[in-house]
Amino acid sequence: MACVIQVINPNTSQAMTDTIAGAARRAAAPGTEIAAVCPSQGVPSIEGHFDEAVATLGVLEQVRLGKAQGVDGHIIACFGDPGLLAARELARAPVVGIAEAAMHMATLVATRFSIITTLPRTLVIARHLLQRYGFEHHCAALHAIDLPVQALEDPHGMAQHKVREQCIQARRQDGCGAIVLGCGGMADLAQTLTRELDMPVIDGVSAAVKMVEALAGLGLSTSKHGDLDYPLDKPLTGAFSHLR
Amino acid sequence: MACVIQVINPNTSQAMTDTIAGAARRAAAPGTEIAAVCPSQGVPSIEGHFDEAVATLGVLEQVRLGKAQGVDGHIIACFGDPGLLAARELARAPVVGIAEAAMHMATLVATRFSIITTLPRTLVIARHLLQRYGFEHHCAALHAIDLPVQALEDPHGMAQHKVREQCIQARRQDGCGAIVLGCGGMADLAQTLTRELDMPVIDGVSAAVKMVEALAGLGLSTSKHGDLDYPLDKPLTGAFSHLR
Amino acid sequence: MACVIQVINPNTSQAMTDTIAGAARRAAAPGTEIAAVCPSQGVPSIEGHFDEAVATLGVLEQVRLGKAQGVDGHIIACFGDPGLLAARELARAPVVGIAEAAMHMATLVATRFSIITTLPRTLVIARHLLQRYGFEHHCAALHAIDLPVQALEDPHGMAQHKVREQCIQARRQDGCGAIVLGCGGMADLAQTLTRELDMPVIDGVSAAVKMVEALAGLGLSTSKHGDLDYPLDKPLTGAFSHLR
Amino acid sequence: MACVIQVINPNTSQAMTDTIAGAARRAAAPGTEIAAVCPSQGVPSIEGHFDEAVATLGVLEQVRLGKAQGVDGHIIACFGDPGLLAARELARAPVVGIAEAAMHMATLVATRFSIITTLPRTLVIARHLLQRYGFEHHCAALHAIDLPVQALEDPHGMAQHKVREQCIQARRQDGCGAIVLGCGGMADLAQTLTRELDMPVIDGVSAAVKMVEALAGLGLSTSKHGDLDYPLDKPLTGAFSHLR
Amino acid sequence: MACVIQVINPNTSQAMTDTIAGAARRAAAPGTEIAAVCPSQGVPSIEGHFDEAVATLGVLEQVRLGKAQGVDGHIIACFGDPGLLAARELARAPVVGIAEAAMHMATLVATRFSIITTLPRTLVIARHLLQRYGFEHHCAALHAIDLPVQALEDPHGMAQHKVREQCIQARRQDGCGAIVLGCGGMADLAQTLTRELDMPVIDGVSAAVKMVEALAGLGLSTSKHGDLDYPLDKPLTGAFSHLR
Amino acid sequence: MACVIQVINPNTSQAMTDTIAGAARRAAAPGTEIAAVCPSQGVPSIEGHFDEAVATLGVLEQVRLGKAQGVDGHIIACFGDPGLLAARELARAPVVGIAEAAMHMATLVATRFSIITTLPRTLVIARHLLQRYGFEHHCAALHAIDLPVQALEDPHGMAQHKVREQCIQARRQDGCGAIVLGCGGMADLAQTLTRELDMPVIDGVSAAVKMVEALAGLGLSTSKHGDLDYPLDKPLTGAFSHLR
Repeated sequence: MACVIQVINPNTSQAMTDTIAGAARRAAAPGTEIAAVCPSQGVPSIEGHFDEAVATLGVLEQVRLGKAQGVDGHIIACFGDPGLLAARELARAPVVGIAEAAMHMATLVATRFSIITTLPRTLVIARHLLQRYGFEHHCAALHAIDLPVQALEDPHGMAQHKVREQCIQARRQDGCGAIVLGCGGMADLAQTLTRELDMPVIDGVSAAVKMVEALAGLGLSTSKHGDLDYPLDKPLTGAFSHLR
Repeated sequence: MACVIQVINPNTSQAMTDTIAGAARRAAAPGTEIAAVCPSQGVPSIEGHFDEAVATLGVLEQVRLGKAQGVDGHIIACFGDPGLLAARELARAPVVGIAEAAMHMATLVATRFSIITTLPRTLVIARHLLQRYGFEHHCAALHAIDLPVQALEDPHGMAQHKVREQCIQARRQDGCGAIVLGCGGMADLAQTLTRELDMPVIDGVSAAVKMVEALAGLGLSTSKHGDLDYPLDKPLTGAFSHLR
Repeated sequence: MACVIQVINPNTSQAMTDTIAGAARRAAAPGTEIAAVCPSQGVPSIEGHFDEAVATLGVLEQVRLGKAQGVDGHIIACFGDPGLLAARELARAPVVGIAEAAMHMATLVATRFSIITTLPRTLVIARHLLQRYGFEHHCAALHAIDLPVQALEDPHGMAQHKVREQCIQARRQDGCGAIVLGCGGMADLAQTLTRELDMPVIDGVSAAVKMVEALAGLGLSTSKHGDLDYPLDKPLTGAFSHLR
Repeated sequence: MACVIQVINPNTSQAMTDTIAGAARRAAAPGTEIAAVCPSQGVPSIEGHFDEAVATLGVLEQVRLGKAQGVDGHIIACFGDPGLLAARELARAPVVGIAEAAMHMATLVATRFSIITTLPRTLVIARHLLQRYGFEHHCAALHAIDLPVQALEDPHGMAQHKVREQCIQARRQDGCGAIVLGCGGMADLAQTLTRELDMPVIDGVSAAVKMVEALAGLGLSTSKHGDLDYPLDKPLTGAFSHLR
Repeated sequence: MACVIQVINPNTSQAMTDTIAGAARRAAAPGTEIAAVCPSQGVPSIEGHFDEAVATLGVLEQVRLGKAQGVDGHIIACFGDPGLLAARELARAPVVGIAEAAMHMATLVATRFSIITTLPRTLVIARHLLQRYGFEHHCAALHAIDLPVQALEDPHGMAQHKVREQCIQARRQDGCGAIVLGCGGMADLAQTLTRELDMPVIDGVSAAVKMVEALAGLGLSTSKHGDLDYPLDKPLTGAFSHLR
Repeated sequence: MACVIQVINPNTSQAMTDTIAGAARRAAAPGTEIAAVCPSQGVPSIEGHFDEAVATLGVLEQVRLGKAQGVDGHIIACFGDPGLLAARELARAPVVGIAEAAMHMATLVATRFSIITTLPRTLVIARHLLQRYGFEHHCAALHAIDLPVQALEDPHGMAQHKVREQCIQARRQDGCGAIVLGCGGMADLAQTLTRELDMPVIDGVSAAVKMVEALAGLGLSTSKHGDLDYPLDKPLTGAFSHLR
C-alpha cells in the first residue's frame, strides 16, 4: 500500500527543504513517497515566535494543498512544531511535528535526553514544547550552539562542527542517554553522530516520517471528535480567503 | 501623562470590537486613551487553533501599526491570547493578553477561580494557557456554554443568559471564589454579574487595560534581553512582506 | 529488509497470546515477522503489582531468548508495561510497552484521551504510568469495566460489551478525543470500535508493533550510554541463574 | 477618584518604611495617596519563618486599622508576603503582596525571571511562593547576596553594590529576561538598575501599588464568597483581643 | 530512655486539648510522656488563615517554653500545621504537624487517601499542604462535613455522625485506600472508624506522636544547617518581646 | 508488646545483610526484635532495573515467609524499594522501603535534602522514587560516588571515604539541610556523619525500623481496601508456584 507523506518545511529556504527531503527519503519505508514542500512566501528561517507565527500560515496553506491531493500524513518540519494543533484541525490525516516525534522516540530508547538547538532565543520554544508534551522530566539539559539556522545550510561549516562538539559535551556531562537535534536543518547529522557517539542522536524529520507511517499503518487519523474537529465554517477574508 | 493603549480585537467583527472598546474605555483611567482596532482581514470569530493562527497575523500587523504610532501598550483581546509571544517580540511597549490579565487578577482576589467560555472546543485553549501561565492549581473548574462566540453579539440573547446561569452554578458548586469570563465578547457582562453574584466576575479586557496602565506607569516595557528580543531581521516575502 | 519483532505476552495465557499475536500480525508491515511468545511459567493474567512482579521475570527470560535469536525489537504486551526498564537494560534492540505505545500514539491524534481498563485495582498502575511517561495532562479520565482480564478471553462475552459501553460513555462525557484500551486482551476490539465511535480507539499491541518498526527503521536501538546500559556482570544464583 | 493605598512594612524599621514609602509614592498615580505604616511592635527585619510569623500579627493589626480608615487597598511590603491570605480574610479591599506583584509583572514582560534576595535562608521562602503562585517555570534562578536585610538601610553600602553585581551576573548567565528584587529594602534600586542593565528590574513595592490601583480601578475587591470570607466571629483573647 | 513530647493544641479550647491529649497518650509508647498544652491566649478554634496566624504565635510561645523544659519533640496539633517552619527554626528537637504526620503515614499503607475536614473554608488549607508536602498525587479527594470545629467538642453530637457518614461514602466512591481525618478534634474517632470501615482511618495526633518518637529514637533533630537555623538574634518588641 | 520486624536485604550478600541488621538493631526500640534475612537466590548487589526485577522475587518470597511467621512489619532494605507495592499486596502488616523511610524523615527535619548514592546508573531509580513519592521539590541534588555497592562491604575502604567527601561537598554547595544515604550498605555511616557534619545524615534502614514501629504502634496495617488488596488467587506455575 503506497503512502504519501507531505513533509512541510515551514520556512522558505529551498536548501533546507532539500536537506529535510533527503533525510525524510532516507527514513521512508519502501512504499512511502515523500512530497517535500515549503511555502512560497514567509520567512527564510525560524528563530523565534514571530517567525513561527508567520510560518504557521504557510504550513496551513500547505496542509490544505496536501489534503486536497489526498496525502496520507503531514509533517511539520521545524523544531518548534509551528501550527501543529491548527494543522490538526485542518487535516484528517495524521499531522506530526518533528520536535514531538524526536522527543517521543527519545523517551523510548533512553530515560533522559538532551536537546541541542541553534540560537539561545529558541530555547524557550523547546522548553514550552517539553511542558506541553509532558517530557520535562525526560529532558536532562538544553543547549544552544549560538549560530543561526541558516549557518547549517553550509554542509561543512562551523555549525555542524559546533553541533558535534555540543553533542560530545552533552554525552559527557548531562547524564543523558540520547540527544535530540533541535532543528530541521540538522537532519542529515543524526546518523553520523549516532555512530560516532555510540548513543542515539535523533533527528525529528526521520522520526516524524516513521511516526506518520506508523499512524497511517494503524489506520489512525486525527480525531474529529472534540477540539481537533475541522475549523468551523466561516468566511475568511483578504489574504486568508484561500485557506478555506 | 497621557497613555495610549491599543486594544486589538483579533477577529474582524466590528460589533465585537465595539463591545471590547466600550469595556476598555469604561476601565481606562482618566489619562488613558483607548485605540480599539481589528484586522481588516482574517476570521470573524475565534473558536479553535486554526482561527487563532489566522488571527495571529492580524494581531501582528496591528501591533506593527500601533508601534509605528507610538502607543504605550498593546492588548490582545481574545481569550486565547493568540500571538502573545510573537507580539511581544515585535513590540517594545508592554503586550498583555486578556486571558492572562483576567487570570492574574483573579488569583489576587480569590484562592481559586472558574472559567466560563463559549464552545467546548475552546476549553483546550484555556487549559493550555493555565498550564503555560502557571495557574492550573488556581482553577477550580472550566465550563462552556456551548454557544458560538457570535451568539454574544446579540446583547440580549440566549448567550448572555447562559453565561449568567453558568456563573450561578459555578458559584454554588465549584468551590471557587471568583469567575473569569472566557471570551472578549463577554466583556460587558462582568460588572453586572459581579454585583448580582456578590463575588468577583472578571472580564479580561478591562483587566488588561489596568495591567497595561500598571506596566506603563512603572516604566516597564517588554524585555529585549533574551528570547523576546525583536525578530531577527530577515526578508519576509509575499503576503507577509509588509510585516517588517 | 525483514524485521523480526518479538511480542511478549507477560502472562501465561495461550488464548491471550493468540489474541495479541493476531492483533500484532494485522498491524505488521509486509516485511515484519511477529514472534509471539509467553513465559512457560508465571501468572495466567496480570491484575496488580504482585502479578506484574512475577510476570516481569518471564518477560526478562523471553527478552534474553529473543536477543539470542537476534530479533529486531521486543514488545511487552501487558498494559502495565511490566519490566520495561529492566528489559531495556537487557536488550540492545528497542523495547516498547503497549501502554506507552498507545499513550504516545493517542497524544498524536487527540489533545486528550481516556483509558479503559479491566479491574479497578489496575487503575493505579495506569495512573503511575501516566505520571512516569509524562502524560497526566493528556488523560481526560480513567475507567474500569470491573471484570477480570480473563473475562476478555471469551470473544463474545460480557467484557467486550462493557468495554464498548464504557467507550461510548467516555466519548459522550469525558471531553476526550481518543480512547486507549488498557489491556492486551482488548487488542482485537480497537478497529471495530474506532469505526463505530468514529474516533480513534487505540490498542497498544498494534501501536507497539508500529513503534518498534519505526525505531528499527530509523536504526535506533536502546541507548547503552548511561542508565540503560547492560546489567553489570554478576553471578545470578538459583532460579535466576539462567537469566545471564 | 482618590484612592488611598495602605502600604504596610511588616517590620518595625522606620528607615525601611521610609524607603518603601518613597518607592510607593514614586509609583503612585496622581490620584493615589500612599499611607505607609509599620507595626509598633514586632521584628526590625524579616529573614526567616519565625520573623514572618511575628510580623504577620503586625500586618493583621495594620490591615484592621486601615480597614477602619476605609483605605482602598492594602500592600504587604515584605518579599515573603507574610500573612497574605489571613489579611485577605480580614480585608474587603484588595490585598497584594510585593512578591506576588513583582512576579506577576515579571511574567508579563519576560518569559523567565531571576530573583535576587538577601540572606540564603530566605531563598526557601521565595521557592515556596513560586510554587504557591504557580511561577516555578517562570523562574530562571534564585540568588542571595548573603547580607542581612538591614545592610540595605545604608543607601550607599556594600549591599546595594552586591545587588548590582548579582544582577549583572544573572543577566549574563541565567537566561532570564527580567530580574525581581527580592526584598522591600531594595525598592529604590529598581529604576536605576533597569536603565543600567537595559532590562526590566522589578521592585515589588511599586509593582504592588500599580496592582492595587488596577484592582481598585476595576472595582474588584477580595472575594468574600468561599475561603477568603471574613474570619468567623469568635472571641480572641489576651494580646490578640484587639484584632477583632 | 524516657521521651517527653510536647503536644501543642494551637487553639485555646481546653476540651479539645483534652481530646488531643487522650489520643496522644493512647498512642504513646511506654517510655513516652505526653505534655499537652494550649496557648493561654488566642483563638478557641482554627478555621481559616486568620485564625492560623493568631494561633501561630501561641504555638511559638509554647515551643519556646517546651524547649526551655527540654522536651524531646513538639507536635502542632491542628490540621493546618500552623507555624510549622517557624517552630522548626525555634526548636532544636523535632517538630511535627499532625497534617503532615497523617499524610505521611497514609502514603505508607495506601496508594491514595481521602481527607475529611470540618468547614469548607478549611479545604484550601489542606490543598496547600498537599502541594507543599508533595502529596497531591496521593490524595483521592477532599471532603468537608460543613460543621465548625467546635461541633466536635460534643463527643456524641452530629459532627461525629457526619464524619462517619462521609468516611463511608469516601470508601465507596473515592477510590481511596485510607482516610485522613482533617481536624485535631477528630482524634478519638480514628480507631473505631478503622475497625468499622476495615481500612486505615488515620488521626494526625497519634500519627505525630509516633513520628516524633521515631525521630527521637533515631537521634534526629531539626537541621540547624541552612534555612531552619535558629531565628537571627534581633530585638523583638512589645507583645512579642517574650518570644526570644 | 513485642514487635517483630522482618528486615529484608533484597540482595544475596551476607556481609550487607549483616551491616543492615546491625543498623536495624541499633535503631530498634527495646521491645522490637529484628529478623534480618536475604533471599537464598538472586543478585549479590542491586545496581539497576534488571537487578531490581530479579531481587523483587526474593523480596516477595521473604515477605511470604515473614507473613507465615507472623511478623509485625516488613522492611525492604535496598534504596530502590524494589517490589514495594507488590509486597504491600502480599502482606497485611506494614511494608516500608528504606528509600521512602529516609525521604519522609528528611522532609521532617529539613526543607530540602540531598541524596548520595553509589553508581551513576542508580540515580534514575532515585529520581523515579522522588517523583512517585512526591518529594521532587524537597530534593536539592543527587550525587553518585561512582563506586559499586559492593565497595561498601569493605568497612574501611575508599567507598566510605568518598561518601564522606560527597556529604561534605553537598553540605557546602547544595543548599540542603539534610542528607539521605542512598544505599543500604551505607547504613552504618549515618550516625558518625551526622555528628561530624552537624546536620542530619539519614540512613533508610534505621528510618524504616522506626517507621514500622510507628505504624505497628498505631495499629495501622496495609490497606486491603482497593488496589493493595491481596493478589487475586490464581495458579502460579513453575519456579513461582511457591509464592502463593
